[in-house]
Amino acid sequence: MSREKQLITPLKEARRFMIDCFKAVGSNQAHAEIVSDNLLEADYRGHYTHGMNRLEKYIKYLQHGLVNPNAVPTIDKETEATAVVNGNNGFGAVVGQYCMNLAMEKAKNTGIGLVVCHHSNHYGMAAMYALQAIKEGFIGFSTTNSPCLMVPTRAKKSALGSNPIGFGVPANDGDSFVLDMSTTNCALGKIEMQIRKGEPLPPGWALDKEGKVQTDANIAFQDKLLLPLGGEEITAGYKGYGLAVFVDVLSGILSGSNYGPYVPKFGTVENLGHAFIAINPKVFAPGVENRMSDLMNLLRNMESIDPNLPVLVAGDPSRQNMEKVHKYGGLSYVQNQHDTNKKLAERLNVSPMKSI
Amino acid sequence: MSREKQLITPLKEARRFMIDCFKAVGSNQAHAEIVSDNLLEADYRGHYTHGMNRLEKYIKYLQHGLVNPNAVPTIDKETEATAVVNGNNGFGAVVGQYCMNLAMEKAKNTGIGLVVCHHSNHYGMAAMYALQAIKEGFIGFSTTNSPCLMVPTRAKKSALGSNPIGFGVPANDGDSFVLDMSTTNCALGKIEMQIRKGEPLPPGWALDKEGKVQTDANIAFQDKLLLPLGGEEITAGYKGYGLAVFVDVLSGILSGSNYGPYVPKFGTVENLGHAFIAINPKVFAPGVENRMSDLMNLLRNMESIDPNLPVLVAGDPSRQNMEKVHKYGGLSYVQNQHDTNKKLAERLNVSPMKSI
Repeated sequence: MSREKQLITPLKEARRFMIDCFKAVGSNQAHAEIVSDNLLEADYRGHYTHGMNRLEKYIKYLQHGLVNPNAVPTIDKETEATAVVNGNNGFGAVVGQYCMNLAMEKAKNTGIGLVVCHHSNHYGMAAMYALQAIKEGFIGFSTTNSPCLMVPTRAKKSALGSNPIGFGVPANDGDSFVLDMSTTNCALGKIEMQIRKGEPLPPGWALDKEGKVQTDANIAFQDKLLLPLGGEEITAGYKGYGLAVFVDVLSGILSGSNYGPYVPKFGTVENLGHAFIAINPKVFAPGVENRMSDLMNLLRNMESIDPNLPVLVAGDPSRQNMEKVHKYGGLSYVQNQHDTNKKLAERLNVSPMKSI
Repeated sequence: MSREKQLITPLKEARRFMIDCFKAVGSNQAHAEIVSDNLLEADYRGHYTHGMNRLEKYIKYLQHGLVNPNAVPTIDKETEATAVVNGNNGFGAVVGQYCMNLAMEKAKNTGIGLVVCHHSNHYGMAAMYALQAIKEGFIGFSTTNSPCLMVPTRAKKSALGSNPIGFGVPANDGDSFVLDMSTTNCALGKIEMQIRKGEPLPPGWALDKEGKVQTDANIAFQDKLLLPLGGEEITAGYKGYGLAVFVDVLSGILSGSNYGPYVPKFGTVENLGHAFIAINPKVFAPGVENRMSDLMNLLRNMESIDPNLPVLVAGDPSRQNMEKVHKYGGLSYVQNQHDTNKKLAERLNVSPMKSI
């Protein structure tokens, strides 16, 4: 698409539109803001698969009564450094923000806090909660389980989700390390992109129903038989498989939510589990932020194989995207998103999203 | 090698021999036992790269005064749920055991304990500390940084270690999930095995000095330019790279030990950093062990692509190796190990290891 034709939506207007949509289907102001900020942050950082393109589905779930927009999380049980939270089937973004706040409160006193929750829903990008922790000067870690699409090493069917990990560390002068990764080799969204480009999948992304490598993007998207990080057994795919179980132990097994193949497809009552860890750098060896800055900068300054492709650290691609957003004065959504939004605005009787 | 010719060493005798060797170079009885049990457990579980084949090097480091065999770890600072420990340049195995015990003590009260340490040395397989936690009914997690050999995505040189993760979860009836994985695509030991077999490396394991895929096992072993889990950028190697930084944040950045490219090659004073997390399942949703058993068993019972290669969970290959050890009445070391041991026994004037 040429730059001339592309519409730019100011961040404020995108936020306003999403808040109005959520309020139109029964959400209170505070929760509508939290979930809109969650989706907006993903778009701002270039994680488009976890941004406004989820809006239509979120609205549908609310209209079908699958998610309670005004549910407030409650604590089942807690110790000085841990808690089990019931999300009460509220917005994943609301549950997540509550849990990370609770983890940080605990970490203030004890140095580390681990909060797990059940009966939650899609909570956006995992890095959201790492960013929440970084803002308060904490190291943040979060995981969630998710609907089945990963094939365990040697198996013919899927039994685990993409089970992502978010991890963030504050450094000096506002710099930070922000890792956001699924434990599958690629996210489902990347397969969608291959479909749009009309290109086959590289080997190592997905399997067919017989357990052979699948390179047809369309079939792979339908079958949802993704390989774990590492790919097949010969290239250490069992490590990604192991990491996916690690994520489900923290998110599902500890919390008592659905886990493994019991996590249903999106579009039902999910009972997802998440985990949140906050670590207070102040109780460790003095100078955590200095060492973090030093490590990140020496990695960034390494000689790269291709001079046009500098060595990055996790979080740098998002920072590049954020700079672009500021340069253009807003977010540039694909036409399809604008079409969807227009229909949503009509259906929900809210003021359409205005773009330039 | 044919079974007829292979020597079998009873576990007790392998342990006796290693303890005698460590005592011969100045270790007290207690520390000699801890480090010998650490190496023995690795051989017992089939992690031969972290077993008795390290003995000769460990002895050399002690003789060169690089490691203090009788150093006792001390606590720099602590909170109710965290601690920073000074390993005082003692055995990694001694420091590790001490730190995981401390983490469990904290987790008993607060639900979770995070202990990091600096001035430690090679601590054996990361799973050792997960196993230590499992024995006491805790979920255990441990990481260590290690000498440079991983090439960050897009870079031409190495800047991070193999930075392994050990993670273990107790389940019902003595069953457990035990993950032990480096964050590189393959361990250096696997490249050694390709050399012995005279086979090239699969793509995705290592790079050459120009940043191209290296398949010559001999050169790869010398160059030590290993790819992170996931391999090259196209197959999501940046995730393994991100995980290696995650490990170094916990192990090195928090503890104040060496980190990243500052970790020197083995054979100098290391100042390695490790991290240990213990989680008390009792403070979470009731039935953690039941759910863990259920998840593991449903994974094991999945239909496999090849009926001869059943779906496993992390820890199963080790259990198979342990059964083999019991069946044969001991450990079967390669001839090279027996030769090394014979020389060690003569040099240190200890009773040679007796095998059947």
